Amino acid sequence: LYHERVIEHYDKPRNVGSFDKSDPGVGTGLVGAPACGDVMKLQIKVDEETGKIVDARFKTFGCGSAIASSSVATEWVKGKQLEEVVTIKNTEIAKYLSLPPVKLHCSMLAEDAIKAAVKDYEAKR
Amino acid sequence: LYHERVIEHYDKPRNVGSFDKSDPGVGTGLVGAPACGDVMKLQIKVDEETGKIVDARFKTFGCGSAIASSSVATEWVKGKQLEEVVTIKNTEIAKYLSLPPVKLHCSMLAEDAIKAAVKDYEAKR
Ligand code: FES
Repeated sequence: LYHERVIEHYDKPRNVGSFDKSDPGVGTGLVGAPACGDVMKLQIKVDEETGKIVDARFKTFGCGSAIASSSVATEWVKGKQLEEVVTIKNTEIAKYLSLPPVKLHCSMLAEDAIKAAVKDYEAKR
Repeated sequence: LYHERVIEHYDKPRNVGSFDKSDPGVGTGLVGAPACGDVMKLQIKVDEETGKIVDARFKTFGCGSAIASSSVATEWVKGKQLEEVVTIKNTEIAKYLSLPPVKLHCSMLAEDAIKAAVKDYEAKR
């Protein structure tokens, strides 16, 4: 039913947890999926000198596909510039994980959460 | 955000797993939620002499609320008669777990899965 990458990220999610959101180098994105009511929090830690994302964390109470999507998202943003990560599309995550169409909204949570985290970081500066 | 009972059943779900579905004493319910695309499998093991459910198992890739709902459902069906468990309403599960309205469809999966498992058991006899 699900691709082995989904199962693998679901069983061993990367970067689960939180940063202190009052840290000026941290951007926090909290987003919800209207389709299912799930919520995802994704945080980035930015090196203020280089503008690079040096670390990321997520938390979600969502389904297996949402957990896998956010796990992949946190991996993908690390080491990248803010301008780069806002171009990450949910369809790329969905393709990487071979999500079925009915689960596209779970990968959308991850895309939205990245954008919201970047916005929050920029608003804090 | 979520009631402590949800968190507790999510962290330590009861009765996760499978029975051999070819066992004549086993009823298997496999149901899906159109709202979110999640799927749940719930199985009951019936004592054919007394008609009582002696054990239950579930598997789902659904969200935290779905995991908690099915964990509760498997606990509630144990020791009960088939006629009794088909009267379990998703609203009772949702109330017990204090699920928000947007998560009612997750508890509906559990109600539907119980009914489907009983139907499957009866069809096999
Ligand atoms: S959101 Fe799909 S089962 Fe809860």
